[in-house]
Amino acid sequence: MSDEEIDEYPDGSVRLRNPHIQLMDQDILYHLALGSESHDLVSMFGDVKFVCLGGTPKRMEQFAFSIMDEIGHKLPAGTTLLDISRYSYRYSMYKVGPVLAISHGMGIPSVGILLHEVIKLMYHARVRDPIFFRIGTCGGIGIEGGTVVISEDAVDGLLRPTLELPVLGKLLQRPAKLDKKLARELKSLASAEDPYDTVTGRTMCTYDFYEGQGRLDGAFCDYTEADKMHYMTQIHKAGVVNIEMESLSFAALTHHAGIKAAVVCVTLMDRLKNDQVLAPKEVLDEWQSRPQILVSRYIKRYLSMKGRLSLDGPGGSMCVKSPRRFKLVQQESETYD
Amino acid sequence: MSDEEIDEYPDGSVRLRNPHIQLMDQDILYHLALGSESHDLVSMFGDVKFVCLGGTPKRMEQFAFSIMDEIGHKLPAGTTLLDISRYSYRYSMYKVGPVLAISHGMGIPSVGILLHEVIKLMYHARVRDPIFFRIGTCGGIGIEGGTVVISEDAVDGLLRPTLELPVLGKLLQRPAKLDKKLARELKSLASAEDPYDTVTGRTMCTYDFYEGQGRLDGAFCDYTEADKMHYMTQIHKAGVVNIEMESLSFAALTHHAGIKAAVVCVTLMDRLKNDQVLAPKEVLDEWQSRPQILVSRYIKRYLSMKGRLSLDGPGGSMCVKSPRRFKLVQQESETYD
Repeated sequence: MSDEEIDEYPDGSVRLRNPHIQLMDQDILYHLALGSESHDLVSMFGDVKFVCLGGTPKRMEQFAFSIMDEIGHKLPAGTTLLDISRYSYRYSMYKVGPVLAISHGMGIPSVGILLHEVIKLMYHARVRDPIFFRIGTCGGIGIEGGTVVISEDAVDGLLRPTLELPVLGKLLQRPAKLDKKLARELKSLASAEDPYDTVTGRTMCTYDFYEGQGRLDGAFCDYTEADKMHYMTQIHKAGVVNIEMESLSFAALTHHAGIKAAVVCVTLMDRLKNDQVLAPKEVLDEWQSRPQILVSRYIKRYLSMKGRLSLDGPGGSMCVKSPRRFKLVQQESETYD
Repeated sequence: MSDEEIDEYPDGSVRLRNPHIQLMDQDILYHLALGSESHDLVSMFGDVKFVCLGGTPKRMEQFAFSIMDEIGHKLPAGTTLLDISRYSYRYSMYKVGPVLAISHGMGIPSVGILLHEVIKLMYHARVRDPIFFRIGTCGGIGIEGGTVVISEDAVDGLLRPTLELPVLGKLLQRPAKLDKKLARELKSLASAEDPYDTVTGRTMCTYDFYEGQGRLDGAFCDYTEADKMHYMTQIHKAGVVNIEMESLSFAALTHHAGIKAAVVCVTLMDRLKNDQVLAPKEVLDEWQSRPQILVSRYIKRYLSMKGRLSLDGPGGSMCVKSPRRFKLVQQESETYD
């Protein structure tokens, strides 16, 4: 068994490494405005196969409508997509047949809260072998703006391939591993006719956008442009091709749960050249669609290999298990910070 | 000069510790959808005195309307408040005379990006002596749900009073200091008639909501309830009265910029008793208004001491400096992740 396969459970179920959950009367996924006893999560989400995460609610809504076209998913007449987590005021979640599209906000803590709850959601919904994608934007290192980067692994600002987290007063380390086979499959779906490059490489994940990424345009900057360039050249030599703010947590938490995951981002500029976005709006819009196109190709290929563009099985309907608890979960989610 | 006063510049201006900004042709505050050469930031924001940050767009919108009532701020007939940063799809920003109300999302990176840009905004708008508040929710340690906590200082998950951040490959440490005088003034505004307690104490700030705060209900949990309780008791003895996810960055960045700042949160539960929110919706809504009420009292007292409920000076109108750049900044902000 190769290193890239040891994540998975033989039956494909999601690894919920928390014995306490089974003992709970109900599990409220606060930040998603869902609950295990208020909502029939198996009926609602049992057919999910792909979970796609990205920064803003707007981009994930756009992705949801675009993937609906791509896989030919039909909604009943007189209906449209609805943000499932709208009562949380934090994340937005859209469901298109086997595809969930969820916004994760900015930074490791924000994507971390979401992943804890989405992993529990997969468990409660009895989803097997889900595949998680992060679709985002990033700064490139030594590659042109508009390049698609598939992450091979994620490192922190000190080039360590682990998510470090204080837990009960001690520093916990979790390897930030991504699925190498999935990355290769995605790379193979890049077309020679794409008018841009698709590369693989190491992704640096930081806790700050300005000083943490060596930018010169934050509120504070104690270093010179030469210091910045020296550091950028150093990390470039260490194999880093792009920098963003979520991959470390995304890789570490999915790996720990035994979930196959990939990070696909488009670069908005080459940080060896500048810190700011200079391309015009139309160009940027087209660039942002590129990671979505690659992930769409993967999803379409998967579904067509299964002989259908929609998956069978339970799931997909809004099911209230307990009207009283349903109302309570909505109300409590509106409150939590 | 006492320790709590050394932050300030004699003329009250905001300390922008970055020599590069003055050399830039324009400074685009991407995540706010504002720019120094596209918008006349002095005209728009020159009259700001108070910057209030909180988690969700909805809560900050509610706060904006409530502070408008409190200070008797009048809008022109036929107008209403508008989210100034709506083109960014990330943060929401409302302006009510001298008060800015902005959502900061969840976690240190999210509030950090915002603070870099708001501090630059204060600088570009030539605001003097602004006062920053974070109004939030938190878990309490050894205090009842519904208690208002004014933070004396902020510590990380290892009880260190510093924000640690990798910058150019080295760990940078910034003291997470809050203004002690401001905290005392806020405390003095708690009324004996308030049907709840208002306390001061140490705030722990974590990078994760579940394992990072010793919760038993995340996707992963490697410790027992006894381990959790042992840790909670330990940090309680170290003076920690509440746990949240933004104060460390909020304290460190405002302190570094020479800005007076305070963190006022309401506890949603006592973590020595449980991990989940059990109070009903109406109770939670009333609890959440408590930090807002305290901060409103401070703002009202300040404005009435100045002899007016609205401040004079420039600012408050939407001013486009360059229509071409204005359009460009809106478009670029829509893209950035």
